[in-house]
Amino acid sequence: MKLQIALDGTLDDSLAILHAVHEYVGIAEIGTPLIYREGMAAVRALRDAFPDLTLLADLKIMDAGDEEASIAFEAGANIVTVLALTQDATVRGAVAAAQRHGGQVMADLMQVPDLVSCARALLEMGVAYLCLHTAHDLKGSGVSPLDGLRQMCRSLPGAPLAIAGGIGLGTIEAVVPLCPEIVIVGGAITRADDPARVARLLRERMPA
Amino acid sequence: MKLQIALDGTLDDSLAILHAVHEYVGIAEIGTPLIYREGMAAVRALRDAFPDLTLLADLKIMDAGDEEASIAFEAGANIVTVLALTQDATVRGAVAAAQRHGGQVMADLMQVPDLVSCARALLEMGVAYLCLHTAHDLKGSGVSPLDGLRQMCRSLPGAPLAIAGGIGLGTIEAVVPLCPEIVIVGGAITRADDPARVARLLRERMPA
Repeated sequence: MKLQIALDGTLDDSLAILHAVHEYVGIAEIGTPLIYREGMAAVRALRDAFPDLTLLADLKIMDAGDEEASIAFEAGANIVTVLALTQDATVRGAVAAAQRHGGQVMADLMQVPDLVSCARALLEMGVAYLCLHTAHDLKGSGVSPLDGLRQMCRSLPGAPLAIAGGIGLGTIEAVVPLCPEIVIVGGAITRADDPARVARLLRERMPA
Repeated sequence: MKLQIALDGTLDDSLAILHAVHEYVGIAEIGTPLIYREGMAAVRALRDAFPDLTLLADLKIMDAGDEEASIAFEAGANIVTVLALTQDATVRGAVAAAQRHGGQVMADLMQVPDLVSCARALLEMGVAYLCLHTAHDLKGSGVSPLDGLRQMCRSLPGAPLAIAGGIGLGTIEAVVPLCPEIVIVGGAITRADDPARVARLLRERMPA
């Protein structure tokens, strides 16, 4: 089980946090707001600082799948995200770019009405990871990505799942038994007084 | 009726094309791939070069509506895009940011199954423009944004519409009678041998 840290702040803050927590982290995510601010300079800066760390660029691709995924792979990302709600041609384009660059595609299932049939189609198209993701903007609304994760575990056992949205020390115990491959944590680490301590405690509660 | 040019290439190419065509253009769009490459440096560069031109940042926001829209408004954009498929909270967040910054929000209706009811909800939430958009990745598939534009004209007369996806000299005559407020053109101008000539001919076929 991998811990993915979502870095959404400034580039300087993100680099400082990653230096503090990288030993606990399997994947460092260059978050959408950080990409909007800095573009691929953020991916290149993290790649230069951490040559061997897996980097995910959270592009949330909706169109021009091949071209847009290639931008991130060429900057040094290993994984890019597409929105599951996009047309199949865009998913296929991103997967084709991933295959050319030795990378992978994660699909973000935010707002997808029928998770299981959508997930099956995405896996058939060559998507490597399926992310159950409750939007940041739904924080405090009582919606949780755990419900979707439970449904997917039952319906698609063994599928390569990721979970994102409000995960932290208070929720990790509920996540671990569902065995996602990737647990994505943002603010619970990046806004902690001691990010390294929170990352270490999360890592200790997750199986290798 | 405004002509919006979608700039998706490198920043240098985009600046060169905009210098050539700006007199025919009402809105310059910093396209998603250009934002992925350069981040807000692209918005700032176009703002510095064209202080009075309306700039649209095609963020295609899916989450963190207030925070992400604010990034572009603070860099000098006048309009940002959200995906119509996102949750209402994200649309409301982007609209709140627009109101604080004196900007506007355009919703991109790509992949929306029920255009009219979605459009009504978006307008009620304060979205300024509704964009009927056929994906770049569906080019050559026979799908056209004109069908959606016709449906919206019939069902929501007077709604502030934009159209995007394969529009050029061969299709402008079909677009104009449907009276969108904004006609978005990308490759037909940016990949033309003479971008200024194509932009001028498009502009001449559109009412003021």
